[in-house]
Amino acid sequence: MREIIAKEVEAVQQQIVNWRREIHRHPEIGWTEYQTTAKVADILEELGMHVQMGAEVIAPAARMGVPEEKILDAARKHARENGVSEARLEQMGNGLTGVVGTYDTGRPGPTIAFRFDMDALQVREAEHAGHIPAVQGFRSEYEGSMHACGHDGHTAIGLGLAMVLMKLRDSLTGTFKLIFQPAEEGCRGAKAMVEASVVDGVDYFFACHLGVTARNNRQIACGVTEFLASTKIDVELEGVPAHAALAPHEGRSALLAAATIALQLHGIPRHGEGISRINVGILEAGEGRNIVPAFARLQLETRGETNEINQFMTDEAIRIIRSAAQMYQVQEHIHIVGQGISATCDQELIDLVSAVASHWDSDLKVVPTLPFRASEDATYLMEAVQKQGGKATYLLIGTELAAGHHNFSFDFQEESLQTAVALFANVMYRLAGKNM
Amino acid sequence: MREIIAKEVEAVQQQIVNWRREIHRHPEIGWTEYQTTAKVADILEELGMHVQMGAEVIAPAARMGVPEEKILDAARKHARENGVSEARLEQMGNGLTGVVGTYDTGRPGPTIAFRFDMDALQVREAEHAGHIPAVQGFRSEYEGSMHACGHDGHTAIGLGLAMVLMKLRDSLTGTFKLIFQPAEEGCRGAKAMVEASVVDGVDYFFACHLGVTARNNRQIACGVTEFLASTKIDVELEGVPAHAALAPHEGRSALLAAATIALQLHGIPRHGEGISRINVGILEAGEGRNIVPAFARLQLETRGETNEINQFMTDEAIRIIRSAAQMYQVQEHIHIVGQGISATCDQELIDLVSAVASHWDSDLKVVPTLPFRASEDATYLMEAVQKQGGKATYLLIGTELAAGHHNFSFDFQEESLQTAVALFANVMYRLAGKNM
Amino acid sequence: MREIIAKEVEAVQQQIVNWRREIHRHPEIGWTEYQTTAKVADILEELGMHVQMGAEVIAPAARMGVPEEKILDAARKHARENGVSEARLEQMGNGLTGVVGTYDTGRPGPTIAFRFDMDALQVREAEHAGHIPAVQGFRSEYEGSMHACGHDGHTAIGLGLAMVLMKLRDSLTGTFKLIFQPAEEGCRGAKAMVEASVVDGVDYFFACHLGVTARNNRQIACGVTEFLASTKIDVELEGVPAHAALAPHEGRSALLAAATIALQLHGIPRHGEGISRINVGILEAGEGRNIVPAFARLQLETRGETNEINQFMTDEAIRIIRSAAQMYQVQEHIHIVGQGISATCDQELIDLVSAVASHWDSDLKVVPTLPFRASEDATYLMEAVQKQGGKATYLLIGTELAAGHHNFSFDFQEESLQTAVALFANVMYRLAGKNM
Amino acid sequence: MREIIAKEVEAVQQQIVNWRREIHRHPEIGWTEYQTTAKVADILEELGMHVQMGAEVIAPAARMGVPEEKILDAARKHARENGVSEARLEQMGNGLTGVVGTYDTGRPGPTIAFRFDMDALQVREAEHAGHIPAVQGFRSEYEGSMHACGHDGHTAIGLGLAMVLMKLRDSLTGTFKLIFQPAEEGCRGAKAMVEASVVDGVDYFFACHLGVTARNNRQIACGVTEFLASTKIDVELEGVPAHAALAPHEGRSALLAAATIALQLHGIPRHGEGISRINVGILEAGEGRNIVPAFARLQLETRGETNEINQFMTDEAIRIIRSAAQMYQVQEHIHIVGQGISATCDQELIDLVSAVASHWDSDLKVVPTLPFRASEDATYLMEAVQKQGGKATYLLIGTELAAGHHNFSFDFQEESLQTAVALFANVMYRLAGKNM
Repeated sequence: MREIIAKEVEAVQQQIVNWRREIHRHPEIGWTEYQTTAKVADILEELGMHVQMGAEVIAPAARMGVPEEKILDAARKHARENGVSEARLEQMGNGLTGVVGTYDTGRPGPTIAFRFDMDALQVREAEHAGHIPAVQGFRSEYEGSMHACGHDGHTAIGLGLAMVLMKLRDSLTGTFKLIFQPAEEGCRGAKAMVEASVVDGVDYFFACHLGVTARNNRQIACGVTEFLASTKIDVELEGVPAHAALAPHEGRSALLAAATIALQLHGIPRHGEGISRINVGILEAGEGRNIVPAFARLQLETRGETNEINQFMTDEAIRIIRSAAQMYQVQEHIHIVGQGISATCDQELIDLVSAVASHWDSDLKVVPTLPFRASEDATYLMEAVQKQGGKATYLLIGTELAAGHHNFSFDFQEESLQTAVALFANVMYRLAGKNM
Repeated sequence: MREIIAKEVEAVQQQIVNWRREIHRHPEIGWTEYQTTAKVADILEELGMHVQMGAEVIAPAARMGVPEEKILDAARKHARENGVSEARLEQMGNGLTGVVGTYDTGRPGPTIAFRFDMDALQVREAEHAGHIPAVQGFRSEYEGSMHACGHDGHTAIGLGLAMVLMKLRDSLTGTFKLIFQPAEEGCRGAKAMVEASVVDGVDYFFACHLGVTARNNRQIACGVTEFLASTKIDVELEGVPAHAALAPHEGRSALLAAATIALQLHGIPRHGEGISRINVGILEAGEGRNIVPAFARLQLETRGETNEINQFMTDEAIRIIRSAAQMYQVQEHIHIVGQGISATCDQELIDLVSAVASHWDSDLKVVPTLPFRASEDATYLMEAVQKQGGKATYLLIGTELAAGHHNFSFDFQEESLQTAVALFANVMYRLAGKNM
Repeated sequence: MREIIAKEVEAVQQQIVNWRREIHRHPEIGWTEYQTTAKVADILEELGMHVQMGAEVIAPAARMGVPEEKILDAARKHARENGVSEARLEQMGNGLTGVVGTYDTGRPGPTIAFRFDMDALQVREAEHAGHIPAVQGFRSEYEGSMHACGHDGHTAIGLGLAMVLMKLRDSLTGTFKLIFQPAEEGCRGAKAMVEASVVDGVDYFFACHLGVTARNNRQIACGVTEFLASTKIDVELEGVPAHAALAPHEGRSALLAAATIALQLHGIPRHGEGISRINVGILEAGEGRNIVPAFARLQLETRGETNEINQFMTDEAIRIIRSAAQMYQVQEHIHIVGQGISATCDQELIDLVSAVASHWDSDLKVVPTLPFRASEDATYLMEAVQKQGGKATYLLIGTELAAGHHNFSFDFQEESLQTAVALFANVMYRLAGKNM
Repeated sequence: MREIIAKEVEAVQQQIVNWRREIHRHPEIGWTEYQTTAKVADILEELGMHVQMGAEVIAPAARMGVPEEKILDAARKHARENGVSEARLEQMGNGLTGVVGTYDTGRPGPTIAFRFDMDALQVREAEHAGHIPAVQGFRSEYEGSMHACGHDGHTAIGLGLAMVLMKLRDSLTGTFKLIFQPAEEGCRGAKAMVEASVVDGVDYFFACHLGVTARNNRQIACGVTEFLASTKIDVELEGVPAHAALAPHEGRSALLAAATIALQLHGIPRHGEGISRINVGILEAGEGRNIVPAFARLQLETRGETNEINQFMTDEAIRIIRSAAQMYQVQEHIHIVGQGISATCDQELIDLVSAVASHWDSDLKVVPTLPFRASEDATYLMEAVQKQGGKATYLLIGTELAAGHHNFSFDFQEESLQTAVALFANVMYRLAGKNM
């Protein structure tokens, strides 16, 4: 069977790369993945999978950090111009992106789910001669957005796995779910999929990420530790404008309050019991050079190695924001727009993936776990599966990177896509092969 | 003659208010005053004045703080849509707004110039029930821009004065120049008018402002003290992006460098020898919540009661910016985009205006001078006139204000417009009346 | 009479300089002027004046910023070692320094008061070759304290004036009071003298300062404007200590709270209506390098050109202190330890001094007023005199300075002492000369 | 043998507690441990050990962070007053504290060293009713100093071990060294002992700490991970003083520069690859309330899980200090006054201690390692032993704590002292027992 799988993966290899590059050219940020979702849905349907979209896979009220109406509108308009059908657009409504493809073999067996995230980042992609997407013509066509975290690759892996799965379907038992999640960046989408019951009844759950701490080609981490819990916070500040020369004392500067917040947040003490993180990613304030600035807004995030450490960071952050607002006599508005929890990979699945990987290709550098040291809302899906008695793990697919995640020169080795598809196909067969 | 002037002013009163309100509805920021310039030019021409525009009145290279090409393009497009003719647009080219109307009586006499500024601010105008422009239907139609400093009123005064001047022309001698200046906000336009020789040969120069420190109706300050010298500075910072969870130590946060700059600038010591001011009016930084922010920009200004104090503030500011950049290992780019100097009003003209005002209307509250405590680039025009032996002064036209200058609820008493026209007309006659 | 006064002043000239130098060698900070007070009392008594000390001239409860018991004890011990008698020490009790010498001519006439301050600063005096006190052997013998504001000179002027007064006594009418005030630095002493009725019944009140804004030799300002109101504030912060490596998150750093306070206070906006000042002069925090610092204290002051502007500064300061404490979860304790008000010099006395000065020595550069731009608690005495119908002014005695006030290289021209004595003696005679 | 050791330990138990309490009453900070060293030397000598002191055990030039002369003088004077003999004082000279006791059995065998640190902290010890040292009468008699890290206990363990060793000497082979180190706080003393060849020829090296991350009674960690490398830095800043009201613009505030440094240091980004720490423990600035502060000093430390991470922190810190100095135009002086490296415990010794501990008392909770998460300069001694082929480990002796290390309420369970002595005695016998 190993050879059959290898052959099928070989067959789809070029297609996976093509998909990845096409998605890379059309990066869509969280909750605006209209084109990507439509494309995935079309392919899954064509392959014969049962496709679910919209409120069937996303609980609208459980979404976090949904962009403003006009951004959704613009994305929909854009999708329409790029050929997405009205029917598809209707399915996705007002920011209900994401799609789940299911195949039930009809034979008794486990329900196995794989999750792939699809969203891009607001990063302006590099153009320099060392950046392969620029040189080879698949640089982002949407200026200011970029697949700088590899989710284009994840989606392509999912599509490749769908093709191999449907080729192998007669050798398999049970049910397979391929979950294409929106809005992973900012930990905004997974909770809404949990609330829409997407993983109800799932026995085995897998997700993966390219790179992160697995920076060698052909390296596989069968699970991760140090998933950072995370909270995403938006802050708006309202001060009092004034003429900066005539009456500076009458102004209340929201800009200086925001600057104080940014600096003080980065001074939150390190936590003695584990990893903590803070980042103020965006600060915008002021209306004109000679006016005491009356408005400001910040986007920030906290993280912690445990939910408790993240809570410490969030508590500190909120107190600092409130105190700085009081210090400058400005009014603060604090919004939690994203939330990720920590999670633990099941040893049983770590061992299983390890065995499969080593058996499949002795050339792979397989390690049980690597530290993740970043956040992921796949943890909500993992937790949901584990709560109902299922098992979950999260893999790292090793790859050399041209530059770190979220950098405008980020790029990975496309060979790793094939490795991931092959590994997941083997795992499928190990767990649900008809003749095993 | 006083009665004749009074009658003529009375006759144009309603027209002045109408113009003010129309200009208020269409606020244009510095170097984009295409519609306002065109409107003024049309009126002056129709009244029979000689009109100069474009490079005749603006030395292109001496302009400071010209907006980006795309903003100029958008303004031009907008003006075209609002009926400005291609001929006018051509005259104003690429941000050469501003217009000078000249009337030469043909009789020997002094050259007298009056200067009016035309530009608006990037302030979103108030909508509340207490804001008269909103209630009476002349609130800004250009969302995000507003005449929040009274330049709409100044321009209307200039047009009213043009009407009265042309009515009285047979009683006058010498030459009259009405200078409608662009880009006063940020001290960006006057120097380019000086360089274009707009005040060459001027014997008497007058400019005025509504309100400022003259907050009582019917109050007139015949000159000002404490003109603040000012420097307008733009800063761009380039850091290094990084994933905020995986490798915060690899990032170089331009956002935190900018926040440090903003806070430290506001901590520059007060100057023991006179007024100093600092304002960071705009700060924008960052691309995404979970990315160490690699870009930031600031817009700020310094001011000083003397050119020396302003220089102290500028020197401090630049050292602080450079040190903060070094502290965060980000690259700084510092641009001087505006510059205003201090100036002194001539006692001779202060006395003359005082005499005229008291004689004209004993009801006026006339004071020799008031402190200005703000910046104005009319000072460049004053300095140029004084250097060639002419005399200059700067008046404050008193008015109660709904809210301070640059506030989104700023508004003045429209009666003050008429007062200003009448006063200037009387000054004209005193200096250049045929029968005097 | 002018010649007689000149001769008498000439006679005491060397003595004044000697006194000044002796006092300079023994600088005592506010409320610890045991030696200086004792010395002044001895001289006044010997001259035949009526001497009052202790609670007769200082209302104990109205004192502000009295040092800790152990500092007072040390000063008293020190004074005893330096030969101050037990009787004198008993008169001064626990920080009741200051002395008033009165001479009643027995003839009807006005009551005229002159006030001189006696306290030094906590500055370590310069030792370099350019510093005359160091070179000529009268540098401070009390390491860490220094007469860096010229109060040694003021006290010497007062003693010189006492000598001349007693020489001229038969030519004078009315009553003379020479008030030697403690604790002017920090605006802590004058109010306690007002409360002790020291200026009750005073018709004319004079005080003076060497230098300040009168930096030319032989320059006299007969009054001052821009007396800055001032508030002196002490802050203590209590945080939570913790091991800086094991549990930084359990600590609450009073040091960082104090640093935040210091920086944010210096960022209080400039006031549009006049001079404002802020200074954090002392910050001490922390117990050990590897412990999160649990204690901090600050000494600071605000100032304003009017009592209202100073109140604005104080209100801002207190809000900032409280907000920073909340931001760091430390407990703040705020103490007002000094307070100075603004005051206005009476035009009548300005004119009188001006006439006297011009008449006395045509070589003097006499100006009606100069801006003071600093704080003085003589304003409390002035206010008290004015409230009861008396007149008050505050003179500046011009002198070139080696370095600015409070600098460790501060030094003045000793000739100015003689000028001050002569001027005051002439003023005395003008107001209360028997034969006038 | 186990029983014999148990009996001997039992016999010295009360003595150990007495010693600990006596040392606790007389805490001495690093390089001033005159009394503690003298006491230890006397006891070791009396027991028959060979005692080395002064330059024999401390290489003078390799000491870091030696206090000022006058502090050493005061400590020596104090020691003299408390009965330390002139002979002992001479041995310790000018801050050459520390003592090594050696016993050579005369029989071939390994050289085994145990290290104990002796210095206290500048913490004012708690007085409240819950603090056992206060209640039971052994609170610090030296106000402002306190054994708040348990080194009093470590020294008592060393003395107890010396007693047991000398009781068991006939059953042992090889050579034993008991190293009593000064100045561990701040990582200042161990390097000077390495340079003095104190561990030359040592085959097995042991050190221990009470508590840290072993917070349960009877818990033993046989080794530690996460020794934090550390650098201790002193900073002095020189600005320019000025009168805070007259000429604030002429001042250069060292206080504000220091505040900026403190806040910015705490904002150094967390390191993605491991633990980092920063603490500004002391900040002192300013001379007087109304003087722009011209002097400031800071004491701070950086730490890192690896030497590389600590180097990152140190590099960042130094750049921030220099940039802040430049920002405020003050002169900075940076001194490295302490340095600790990371280290790895040898698995062979971890296993051996684990076996010994489990065998000796099945009631102990023995774990192979615990994370240390703090710094220790025992790492220099460990590194020196390992470089010459020896083995080293560092134990944690579990104890419940009344409050964390360095807290003014710090206290441990005295039973743990006995546990440590027993464990080390058993380890001695296991490694060098005659009959084994």
